[in-house]
Amino acid sequence: MENRNVSIFDSTLRDGAQGQGISFSLEDKLKIVKVLDDIGVSYIEAGNPGSNPKDMEFFKRIKDIKLKKAKIAAFGSTRRPGTDPAQDKNLQNLLEADTEVTVIFGKSWDFQVADILRTSLEENLNMISDTIKYLVKNKKEVIFDAEHFFDGYKDNKDYALESIKRAKSAGANVIVLCDTNGGTLPSEIKEIVEDVIEKVGGNIGIHCHDDMGMAVASSIVAAQAGANHIQGTFIGIGERCGNANLSTIIPTLKLKLGYNTIEDKNISRLTSVARFIAEISNITLRDESPYVGSAAFAHKGGMHIDAICKAPKAYEHIAPELVGNNRRFLISEVSGKSTIFSQVKKIFPNISKESEDIQKITDRLKELEYEGYQFEGAEGTVELVMRKIVDKYKPFFKLNHFKAFAEQPSSAGEFSSSVMINITVDGKEEMSAAEGNGPVNALDKALRKALEVFYPQLNDVRLVDYKVRVLDSESATSSKVRVLIESTDGVQNWSTVGVSRDIIQASWIALVDSIEYKLIKDSEKTKF
Amino acid sequence: MENRNVSIFDSTLRDGAQGQGISFSLEDKLKIVKVLDDIGVSYIEAGNPGSNPKDMEFFKRIKDIKLKKAKIAAFGSTRRPGTDPAQDKNLQNLLEADTEVTVIFGKSWDFQVADILRTSLEENLNMISDTIKYLVKNKKEVIFDAEHFFDGYKDNKDYALESIKRAKSAGANVIVLCDTNGGTLPSEIKEIVEDVIEKVGGNIGIHCHDDMGMAVASSIVAAQAGANHIQGTFIGIGERCGNANLSTIIPTLKLKLGYNTIEDKNISRLTSVARFIAEISNITLRDESPYVGSAAFAHKGGMHIDAICKAPKAYEHIAPELVGNNRRFLISEVSGKSTIFSQVKKIFPNISKESEDIQKITDRLKELEYEGYQFEGAEGTVELVMRKIVDKYKPFFKLNHFKAFAEQPSSAGEFSSSVMINITVDGKEEMSAAEGNGPVNALDKALRKALEVFYPQLNDVRLVDYKVRVLDSESATSSKVRVLIESTDGVQNWSTVGVSRDIIQASWIALVDSIEYKLIKDSEKTKF
Repeated sequence: MENRNVSIFDSTLRDGAQGQGISFSLEDKLKIVKVLDDIGVSYIEAGNPGSNPKDMEFFKRIKDIKLKKAKIAAFGSTRRPGTDPAQDKNLQNLLEADTEVTVIFGKSWDFQVADILRTSLEENLNMISDTIKYLVKNKKEVIFDAEHFFDGYKDNKDYALESIKRAKSAGANVIVLCDTNGGTLPSEIKEIVEDVIEKVGGNIGIHCHDDMGMAVASSIVAAQAGANHIQGTFIGIGERCGNANLSTIIPTLKLKLGYNTIEDKNISRLTSVARFIAEISNITLRDESPYVGSAAFAHKGGMHIDAICKAPKAYEHIAPELVGNNRRFLISEVSGKSTIFSQVKKIFPNISKESEDIQKITDRLKELEYEGYQFEGAEGTVELVMRKIVDKYKPFFKLNHFKAFAEQPSSAGEFSSSVMINITVDGKEEMSAAEGNGPVNALDKALRKALEVFYPQLNDVRLVDYKVRVLDSESATSSKVRVLIESTDGVQNWSTVGVSRDIIQASWIALVDSIEYKLIKDSEKTKF
Repeated sequence: MENRNVSIFDSTLRDGAQGQGISFSLEDKLKIVKVLDDIGVSYIEAGNPGSNPKDMEFFKRIKDIKLKKAKIAAFGSTRRPGTDPAQDKNLQNLLEADTEVTVIFGKSWDFQVADILRTSLEENLNMISDTIKYLVKNKKEVIFDAEHFFDGYKDNKDYALESIKRAKSAGANVIVLCDTNGGTLPSEIKEIVEDVIEKVGGNIGIHCHDDMGMAVASSIVAAQAGANHIQGTFIGIGERCGNANLSTIIPTLKLKLGYNTIEDKNISRLTSVARFIAEISNITLRDESPYVGSAAFAHKGGMHIDAICKAPKAYEHIAPELVGNNRRFLISEVSGKSTIFSQVKKIFPNISKESEDIQKITDRLKELEYEGYQFEGAEGTVELVMRKIVDKYKPFFKLNHFKAFAEQPSSAGEFSSSVMINITVDGKEEMSAAEGNGPVNALDKALRKALEVFYPQLNDVRLVDYKVRVLDSESATSSKVRVLIESTDGVQNWSTVGVSRDIIQASWIALVDSIEYKLIKDSEKTKF
């Protein structure tokens, strides 16, 4: 493996914010900057002060925060055609942002200059060099983003190369080759990066988009070809199909090629940082995300699980701990007693493989599976099944009855469902009622309201995900329904599952498990 | 662009079923086979009859279905160490599955032979050749999956090559190089595939996993290096991080490299097929999916939208229509009128493109989409929207009110829901009540009971499919729900869709559309 340094440039807050449904508050942005700096990213591109007035406020605030390593970058375009940089409002905004680094994007594709910018090819080159010279004179480190470089190179190679030569001689520290439309093949990226390094030299960067699902591969190929600066977004968010995913690129560069990016000791924080950024971005991190997703080291086939128990490298390309992730065995119809034993051992370390509880748990899980339960991604329910058998735990409350109503047209105006519920805790009866969006939402509200009287900590619990699967959909509305619920108390997330012919009852089962799980975890803590 | 043929091998139903949370019913499997065959996939790997008894039932059923092009493949392992193929239960199951093609996986990595299989290196080679010879003798086309080929090649090149040479000389038609753990870099894939083609020749396939986010790139690189068979799953589902995504690979091979895979005319169906398979798999197709996702051609930045209006290639690597997708501007939606016109023309052949009804329909569908409707696989509802605007049709009944109840414990014994409903048809009021498995089943029964008094033909109608999708699952039980219903009258099937914050109301909307659709079709017939 080669010992090389590649600097990581994160654009979650600028290019990432172009993603569908993404919108960061000022506080979100500050949180993301802190965590990216903390793991050792080299550059953080945080906004475009010329086009977005909200960004200027961020640049004011960030100056009060002491960062360990990362340089903050502001992003903007070259001066307008036929103007003087000192008179260009956008460039004045960039100076006002007062960052150590300024990223300037300019056109490298002759078609873009003629048809989109609508100026002469020569004037575009002057815009690039005038702008960079002006910023360098104002003490900025300048990174030049050569927009559409690869499309430009393929259409008019000489012009594309000239655009970046001008940027370099004007004083740009890094020349970033952008595959702006995401349509360049990795094989082309390799060839073109090699040619650029030969002809232009210096610090060459790469900026890829995922329109062909190859942004990660193209970034890696560019690094192998000699690029020493990679732009992307930490979890891959960005316009259209997203940007190159840094949480995939960083471990691949380190663990497969030996290239240095962030500090080695922080590689094991990649999973938690990816999940944190997803949370702040208000998106669900895909379970299947390479390295950092919850399914990245999840094994389902019984044959694979057996092999993993013999030797993990049988079906894992790296040890999950290296990136701070965990191995998971999905309990499915194909999993056997040894999978279940290894799961029970995590909760009850002293249990023996021969314990008859193991057999009881295996039988119970199989019975539930036969009824339509599926335990993948429902670890909360699995743990309760185990605890009920090993620990002989008793429920925290007893349902006396609930009643659900819905009507159309609704007397409440908008269609709504309502629920009343009656429970007993330690001999004390409590009754409550709630209205909600649908019977399940109403049931959830009513149950919590009644239980909070006895267990105030349930006030912190909320549902974060709710999935419904109609089983054997061919028998349509009378078939069984499986409901999967994910809950959080702000610290930990857990998932539970319920199955019934009736969606209300299936949801009830999953809700009860969710609450029992939280209460059992809390009572465990007070034991010690 | 080079004119080459690459055959596409889809394993959604076998390797895809290993994905977290994926579980296909028999009917789901048959639907997926039909659509994959219809667009021209070469091979469909449908299950492992030896390890899963449910799969055998599928292989029986599929024989009654006439396919256009696709060959169905059953998957299984080589014979066990020290046994005779004719005595091997797994191989007998493979023969019993009675498919045209059998896929046999065997070990190419010496470490796997020694540590996982725990047999001698020579016996493993015999297992490969004996098994393939036996199947060829039994008239099977055999595809050999060389498991862990790349890891094996890197550890012990001679042994890995020997394993596939044996498979080839035993009669395997295609040798598939598998990156089973997903840890091989595209640069290594290129080099190794080139070496294999030089040393072994013949039909070489590639099978990649996405553990480094590069399964698509590695598959493309392998094809460029000479592989002429690509294995993957249509929307990328599979164990851990998933398999190579065929809906990304197929258009890249055709549109960027000119390689032939499925029929050219079906490239424009990729988006709808990907969405259909996601729907059947009960997963949400990522908006950011290359080519086929809803955000793949969505533009947010104002500057980008301006440029796209000047020239689409400014920020699109291909025209979205090529893959059946649409351009979307996330700020102001502009699209689709001509698609809608061609749909309306099917029902009203005399309508002109300039008719203001076309604009009204476009606006109405966009409004509904904004509310969370999705019309893929809901043609019944789309047709009703069109008829309501063009034909000024009036509803067949009027709802006065319905009321739904559920209680636990239930006075009826088992948990059940009940509904009472009151409707008016031609000035006559009718009231009915029904109990059912869940509120939707009860609602369906009660509504039909009331309507059959007036429209006895509804007696033939029944629901054959019912799917529930929670939209924006992050807001959990209070988020919107989309219900998709498929109905049949024994002659024709049709699908309708409803969206609401309340599952009962969403189901009601879809149920009403289903009945209106049936009644409108019947009244059309009597017109002529």
